[in-house]
Amino acid sequence: MIIKLIDQIEDNQKRTVIDKINSIGYKVSEVKTQVSSYLIAIGKKEFDIRKIGFLPGIADIHRVSDEYKLVSRKWKVNPTRIDLGDNVFIGGGSLAIMAGPCSIETESQIERTIDHLKQNGVRIMRGGVFKPRSSPYAFRGLGIDGLKMWHQQARAAGIKIISEVMQVSQIAEMYDFVDVFQVGARNTQNFNLLDELGKVDKPVMIKRGISGTIEELLSSAEYIFSGGNEKLILCERGIRTYEKASRNTMDVNAIPILKEKSHLPVVADPSHGIGIREYVEPVALAAVMAGADGIIYETHQKPEEAYSDSQQTLDFIESTQLINKLKRCFELRESF
Amino acid sequence: MIIKLIDQIEDNQKRTVIDKINSIGYKVSEVKTQVSSYLIAIGKKEFDIRKIGFLPGIADIHRVSDEYKLVSRKWKVNPTRIDLGDNVFIGGGSLAIMAGPCSIETESQIERTIDHLKQNGVRIMRGGVFKPRSSPYAFRGLGIDGLKMWHQQARAAGIKIISEVMQVSQIAEMYDFVDVFQVGARNTQNFNLLDELGKVDKPVMIKRGISGTIEELLSSAEYIFSGGNEKLILCERGIRTYEKASRNTMDVNAIPILKEKSHLPVVADPSHGIGIREYVEPVALAAVMAGADGIIYETHQKPEEAYSDSQQTLDFIESTQLINKLKRCFELRESF
Amino acid sequence: MIIKLIDQIEDNQKRTVIDKINSIGYKVSEVKTQVSSYLIAIGKKEFDIRKIGFLPGIADIHRVSDEYKLVSRKWKVNPTRIDLGDNVFIGGGSLAIMAGPCSIETESQIERTIDHLKQNGVRIMRGGVFKPRSSPYAFRGLGIDGLKMWHQQARAAGIKIISEVMQVSQIAEMYDFVDVFQVGARNTQNFNLLDELGKVDKPVMIKRGISGTIEELLSSAEYIFSGGNEKLILCERGIRTYEKASRNTMDVNAIPILKEKSHLPVVADPSHGIGIREYVEPVALAAVMAGADGIIYETHQKPEEAYSDSQQTLDFIESTQLINKLKRCFELRESF
Amino acid sequence: MIIKLIDQIEDNQKRTVIDKINSIGYKVSEVKTQVSSYLIAIGKKEFDIRKIGFLPGIADIHRVSDEYKLVSRKWKVNPTRIDLGDNVFIGGGSLAIMAGPCSIETESQIERTIDHLKQNGVRIMRGGVFKPRSSPYAFRGLGIDGLKMWHQQARAAGIKIISEVMQVSQIAEMYDFVDVFQVGARNTQNFNLLDELGKVDKPVMIKRGISGTIEELLSSAEYIFSGGNEKLILCERGIRTYEKASRNTMDVNAIPILKEKSHLPVVADPSHGIGIREYVEPVALAAVMAGADGIIYETHQKPEEAYSDSQQTLDFIESTQLINKLKRCFELRESF
Repeated sequence: MIIKLIDQIEDNQKRTVIDKINSIGYKVSEVKTQVSSYLIAIGKKEFDIRKIGFLPGIADIHRVSDEYKLVSRKWKVNPTRIDLGDNVFIGGGSLAIMAGPCSIETESQIERTIDHLKQNGVRIMRGGVFKPRSSPYAFRGLGIDGLKMWHQQARAAGIKIISEVMQVSQIAEMYDFVDVFQVGARNTQNFNLLDELGKVDKPVMIKRGISGTIEELLSSAEYIFSGGNEKLILCERGIRTYEKASRNTMDVNAIPILKEKSHLPVVADPSHGIGIREYVEPVALAAVMAGADGIIYETHQKPEEAYSDSQQTLDFIESTQLINKLKRCFELRESF
Repeated sequence: MIIKLIDQIEDNQKRTVIDKINSIGYKVSEVKTQVSSYLIAIGKKEFDIRKIGFLPGIADIHRVSDEYKLVSRKWKVNPTRIDLGDNVFIGGGSLAIMAGPCSIETESQIERTIDHLKQNGVRIMRGGVFKPRSSPYAFRGLGIDGLKMWHQQARAAGIKIISEVMQVSQIAEMYDFVDVFQVGARNTQNFNLLDELGKVDKPVMIKRGISGTIEELLSSAEYIFSGGNEKLILCERGIRTYEKASRNTMDVNAIPILKEKSHLPVVADPSHGIGIREYVEPVALAAVMAGADGIIYETHQKPEEAYSDSQQTLDFIESTQLINKLKRCFELRESF
Repeated sequence: MIIKLIDQIEDNQKRTVIDKINSIGYKVSEVKTQVSSYLIAIGKKEFDIRKIGFLPGIADIHRVSDEYKLVSRKWKVNPTRIDLGDNVFIGGGSLAIMAGPCSIETESQIERTIDHLKQNGVRIMRGGVFKPRSSPYAFRGLGIDGLKMWHQQARAAGIKIISEVMQVSQIAEMYDFVDVFQVGARNTQNFNLLDELGKVDKPVMIKRGISGTIEELLSSAEYIFSGGNEKLILCERGIRTYEKASRNTMDVNAIPILKEKSHLPVVADPSHGIGIREYVEPVALAAVMAGADGIIYETHQKPEEAYSDSQQTLDFIESTQLINKLKRCFELRESF
Repeated sequence: MIIKLIDQIEDNQKRTVIDKINSIGYKVSEVKTQVSSYLIAIGKKEFDIRKIGFLPGIADIHRVSDEYKLVSRKWKVNPTRIDLGDNVFIGGGSLAIMAGPCSIETESQIERTIDHLKQNGVRIMRGGVFKPRSSPYAFRGLGIDGLKMWHQQARAAGIKIISEVMQVSQIAEMYDFVDVFQVGARNTQNFNLLDELGKVDKPVMIKRGISGTIEELLSSAEYIFSGGNEKLILCERGIRTYEKASRNTMDVNAIPILKEKSHLPVVADPSHGIGIREYVEPVALAAVMAGADGIIYETHQKPEEAYSDSQQTLDFIESTQLINKLKRCFELRESF
């Protein structure tokens, strides 16, 4: 159960509401986000919701039986739109395209990528400066200096930045230089990181775990939301299955299911979803038709020379073609 | 290696070719389909292909390193088109729509379904008369009498029939009353059934196994092809994963991969792929954008009263809407 | 609900019972096995079981809420023991060891294997004469002639035979020459084959499907049982997962779960369960400690020359060592 | 390739070795653990290893083709034994038993658990004070105060403590109060945490990821080792599969495979491996027979009242029985 409180609620009013809920046998968690204050009541007893509803200080009450509450559409029916400023949005009726290299590598790479994006009207650039790598001996990214270099160019060009944050200490370091924090698939259940991101007032895109369930993805989003940050984006990036003909199995089913269960925008990552350059396009188009609010994919001026993920990265010609087709798919979907 | 033989090859010529291949250290299987004769040579030794190419009786030779040979696009680059007669095709540049109930139930059900299909220009009707059910106490279908009843109506209406064959003895029984034999997901590796379907001159659609790999699906198709029947269709119907929010996980990746690896048409089954009525549409549209040659789905005049699969079956209003959208997605894809 | 009928029940008595059950809103299936007659009633309504219990002709009644009924331990608490004759048993407090090659190959191979088994007191020999192979060009086994050759030697040596049956037509062919029919992992849900094996009066060992659930394995056993054959053995042989360091993932959990859910004996197949020769032994010992009633594994006089499965086959020295350890593990387990 | 350096190596000698390796086309990482110094050379070129071996400053050289190097048995054949002090060891020929509650709850719970362990000769107690929970509204553990309370009692009783560390900042906080840091299944690829644990001189037990591969587990161990900490323990705790009859699928195969691939001790966690109280015992015994160096499991004076994991927690009677059987299984294994 979610109880939204009025902004001017007095302490003794809140106390009364909490006592009342406790007396029914429910446990209460107080949640204060950057937008509103809520009480989350967890329990299974049957009771008459009107017995609480009349109490002073309550804006509205919603029964939500899901494990996750505040990210559920049972509570908030209208889709959430994330505003990155300068007329760049994710969710709420537009198609957000985010493209860029797996890793930020050099100044010239950034320049060429930004040129490519601008030519195609893409406003959000992806790229990693802290890279999670399964081997300790592999390239781990340029770090914060790489991010600063990138930020300088992107800012000048009116391009927004999404980049992965891997640990709590990086949040403050990265804060001034990113527009969206990305939580990677290996950190979807790094609960301390999620807690800390709840305290930030910048949007966070959470990738589904490597073999995370849809339910777990929503619960991870609930962590950040209940920590205070309502600006959340969900990302389907393929799951681990027995099939080895592709790097991951893009779970296209997850897109309509997440859209139905949650009010948060859903972005699809076809690069990781299939992991094979030649097939990124059909999977990306499929994701749009399935209802995705955005597509994030990897592109590089010379994919074969990329420091990482070269086998799944598009060159700029393929990328241009993809962008055009994505837009036409989205137009068709909107016309339905 | 595939060696296509000329039609008029003499026995002693063939003998010479086989001896030559054996002498290199390859094992030879003779394959005679309803269309041509081939020698399939299995081995790993390096040799000069021209040493064989000049022998009399050979039409052409292709190196194919895949486990499967005759269904590979490395041998036959052009897509295969299956002709069901009366201007009904699967594959080769059209979108085949196949719809109908999970189980054939009654005469009036057939009639109403056929009416619905005709109104929407759909030429192929699906339906089961032999039903594989995990419990022995569940409804197992109307059997051959149901098929005959269905066939009579479908023939009159110009509608083609696709229906599942579960065992060898049903092939002859069903032969006169179906246009496409379907091999279900539990029978993808029922090799005796595949062998026997190789002897039939009617098209066969093979569903991917419940947790079958893409490679295994192609090898199963190779069974039928090498048994003599070249009229094959592949079907992606979702795979079994850890995710329980959907019945199966539609492997949308498999569609472009199968199209690249094989010359056979690829059909997608969104009804089983996600298993939830509300989401069949987005998944079906996604499959078209990913490159599917056809869509097969379940529809029923009253889904909630269907004998089986009611939770994933569309009613006729939803079905009509889906058909229209499928066509528009296909048009868009063709325009690319 | 399972209603066991008395042997001398009269037709009108049975009719009365069925009518009574139908009137509650349950559907009834009549099951007549080689041992007894049962009514299986499927439904969810609450009712007073005593209202039926007093009817003449009923031996006893058990509520069984599982999907499977007759193979459930909720109905039959005591473990089933399968008698192969000549003092050879599977289940019911002994450890059955079954060993032999993947494929029956030659007369001398059979001879040497039988010698090896006899020296180690093993009474059951495994071997395939009909081989399910994913490629149509691979060795498919010696067929019925191989089985006859094997049977002649085994009979003379007092060794029992377990061998895979792949299709309905092979049941009659094989009947005189096997002691246990094996249903392979690709046929666990070949329901026609299961139906026919229900009519046979010889034991059947059913392997779990390649990615079959425990529930599905039990439902497949229910098919055969309800078809008339109570002599059933369940076999855990590893499942398909994302892990590629082993051929399959031996589901050791399945052993105690199957033992708890069903009264049927449970055999483990470590050869397929891990698929790597060096590790067959530890996995086999683990399966015994987990509660298996038997172990089936592959052994060959020269594993590296075996026609199939050579990478997971033990030589006779390893096999002898394994047998000794299996017996000691079983002794320890029995002493608990 | 691993090049172990002599302790007294001079800087210019090391420089020469590195230059030489670079000249072959290999990349070099310097690794300095609390025990020795190494150069890890990554590359694929063929070359004569003797060309490097003669250089001054090198203790020995091993070719290791695995992705992971320092944790590989190709480099270090003898099993590693972890010394917790006071004659408590993990690995190297003994069976380490670690038991205790999922969560540390109260002083009396600790007291009663310690009593139980002492009565049974168990020297290591498990328990969580920082709990990773998928829902933000669930109990998250007593935190550092709980650990201190626990430590005081355990120290007095001569009991060693293993407890999960969830984030970098907790390492220093926990350092004085734990004997083994545990990395949980959701943090196996939290690379920053692994890096920091490399700097600690206390043992670390790393659990396999929720759907982590064996290869990934070893690479995660390599992170800590190459960060400086050689005191590592691997833990198999079940993987996520499609099967829902158990919480996870205990991958018993992983035990012999990890033992073969790595010199590190391997512990099994049957509580999470199957997740059902009644079946913890058979799975634990199976793990010992498969070769585990230790067993970690959950026990509580009143499992049904435990704050978390009550469905998979043994009471003290079951725990006592399990300990006795574990010891007898281990004795039998040692006698082989």
